[in-house]
Amino acid sequence: MSHIELSCTSCGASRTSSVRLLRCRDCSAPLHVAYRKESADFPGAQPAGWRGSPVPSPIHDPGALVDLGEGHTPAVRLPALEEAVGVRELIGKLEFLNPTGSFKDRGSSVMVAVAREHGVRALVEDSSGNAGASVAAYAARAGMEAHVFVPSGAPAAKIGQIRVYGAKVHTVEGSREAVGDAAAAFAQEHGLVYASHSLSPYFLEGTKMFAYEVLEQFGEELPEHIVMPVGNGGLYLGTWKGFRELAESRRITRIPRLHCVQARAVMPVVAAFRGEDWSGSSGSTTVAGGIAVAAPARKAEIMDVVRESGGSAVAVEDADILAWQRSLAEREGIYAEPTSAAALAGLSALVRAGAIERSDRVLVPLTGFGMKDAPPS
Amino acid sequence: MSHIELSCTSCGASRTSSVRLLRCRDCSAPLHVAYRKESADFPGAQPAGWRGSPVPSPIHDPGALVDLGEGHTPAVRLPALEEAVGVRELIGKLEFLNPTGSFKDRGSSVMVAVAREHGVRALVEDSSGNAGASVAAYAARAGMEAHVFVPSGAPAAKIGQIRVYGAKVHTVEGSREAVGDAAAAFAQEHGLVYASHSLSPYFLEGTKMFAYEVLEQFGEELPEHIVMPVGNGGLYLGTWKGFRELAESRRITRIPRLHCVQARAVMPVVAAFRGEDWSGSSGSTTVAGGIAVAAPARKAEIMDVVRESGGSAVAVEDADILAWQRSLAEREGIYAEPTSAAALAGLSALVRAGAIERSDRVLVPLTGFGMKDAPPS
Repeated sequence: MSHIELSCTSCGASRTSSVRLLRCRDCSAPLHVAYRKESADFPGAQPAGWRGSPVPSPIHDPGALVDLGEGHTPAVRLPALEEAVGVRELIGKLEFLNPTGSFKDRGSSVMVAVAREHGVRALVEDSSGNAGASVAAYAARAGMEAHVFVPSGAPAAKIGQIRVYGAKVHTVEGSREAVGDAAAAFAQEHGLVYASHSLSPYFLEGTKMFAYEVLEQFGEELPEHIVMPVGNGGLYLGTWKGFRELAESRRITRIPRLHCVQARAVMPVVAAFRGEDWSGSSGSTTVAGGIAVAAPARKAEIMDVVRESGGSAVAVEDADILAWQRSLAEREGIYAEPTSAAALAGLSALVRAGAIERSDRVLVPLTGFGMKDAPPS
Repeated sequence: MSHIELSCTSCGASRTSSVRLLRCRDCSAPLHVAYRKESADFPGAQPAGWRGSPVPSPIHDPGALVDLGEGHTPAVRLPALEEAVGVRELIGKLEFLNPTGSFKDRGSSVMVAVAREHGVRALVEDSSGNAGASVAAYAARAGMEAHVFVPSGAPAAKIGQIRVYGAKVHTVEGSREAVGDAAAAFAQEHGLVYASHSLSPYFLEGTKMFAYEVLEQFGEELPEHIVMPVGNGGLYLGTWKGFRELAESRRITRIPRLHCVQARAVMPVVAAFRGEDWSGSSGSTTVAGGIAVAAPARKAEIMDVVRESGGSAVAVEDADILAWQRSLAEREGIYAEPTSAAALAGLSALVRAGAIERSDRVLVPLTGFGMKDAPPS
């Protein structure tokens, strides 16, 4: 018997672990990996290079691990920006120092390993950029074929990176949602596995390592707040799951408040947090392309985490995003994508609004490398 | 009294440590940092995050350290390529997972810290790309002004990255040597420090950490060979210095053979190794722009290390470099610059030539991120 099963995030129904199941058969809500209590003595195959206490892992066979050196990203103090923002301590975790240049590699590593364990030979994914490159790289590493569906307007550099890893790129006209539909239809037509990073429960088992690393790096002095750019919520929800596991195993007694930042043009989570109607589309223009997701599949979960963690959600203007991106590069020497800089703009807004105190310690993941989303030269 | 001094690599003369001294006053040869025996109980300020045995460091004050999370790069097995090359084990060390996307950050971190310690407020550097971006980032982090001189034909993406960190870019027509001359003249004219990464002895004190990390990651089972792309030799010479220190402090008993790889179009080291005349220029075209250095300032030292380490030097064709870059991406999921892939092409040639045995273990640094030198999209 496997040590894991899939559990519905809404109705709680349980299912056998499967890479082909992306939503609950009963209520269509997204799924999570659940670890059976009976198999508490088997935590699953541990992530490569992990030396901390055992982490619950959905991978059965260490031979299935797909390791490109992901994770173990540095946490560096940002003294110039902490002064500019007005908080006691501001730390950036350099998630762009993952193998393909973004935090997505944490999720892809686990998702592709589980697919490998299930004997999958070809994956279908849809992504406007970073997730596509990441899944393409890990599929290549695992010897799998990858089909990545992208919107026709995606940045050429990102599409170029996806192709470099040997993935087949399928360009789709229309909305971001149309791209996802085309990917799902293609997978069904060809009998392939649709490894949607926004729905795969295994993806979150990778991103949750962010929380485990924060504990390793900060020890008992966890930051009071973590401020993240949120699109599909892959890092946000994974981090929450990691901290919940750590709290349940009594290794921490307090979970940092997890705050969501979105661009003003695409702010479904912020609108829901404020109880406002919002009916924009992913096609709306923002410099923060990585979080331009109008209808996140896991929006209900994201809202739960905002509430349960005592976090908040804030929308920021493109001009502020670009100004913070520039400050981060010119004052701290760190070149991150606009999407990453959105978190700094959001942090500044949260401090001004009093949601974060000036005496607090704040952690911000810097999610993607600046060259991945640079203006055309 | 300082625990360090500068020592001439040719005549052995000693000088007081200074960021303004790039060559021996007596014989013009480049300099190294030497650690005084009398101060053996003070190893200098340790690199951020370093948990191993003390490393001799030229930095006096821990407050002068400039830390962007450099180093601690993952070493990953490359099983598909080791089969293609025909060696027992091939490991890639992902040096592109440094903060600006190349190994240069190891050197810049120490070089800029020493400059900070000496009260320097502005630096001048010349670089066709990666070193310029790296020095720009570390200067920004240290609150220093940076002037980076680049050849007019440098890739737009690399120049763009240098500008992002707020450095002033000076474009120079003519040869690579003309760029260096312009930088030196500008520094002299304005009374600024010319922090040449190819001549600074402190730069090598940063890149030597590569050797210390290899020992941490491999333990007593050090690889038999390390194959590197060599232009100015910053990583090559630093690695040798690190291993020499480890051997002198009896922490290792054997140093891996260090092999140089150059592009056929710009191969001064390879020609010297073969005892051939070579009179090309850095302006010669190769896809491996990071090693297109026709007259490396430390060429004599590089030749010494080839001989002393029992290594060799080999030149490779651009077509082979691009083919290995593609294999690395499509078969291992790793996107490195052409310059990095040159090492793989060189390794393959060395195995065919019998300089590396099929039963050997080989380490290759993957020096720069692929997106830094991608073809224009």
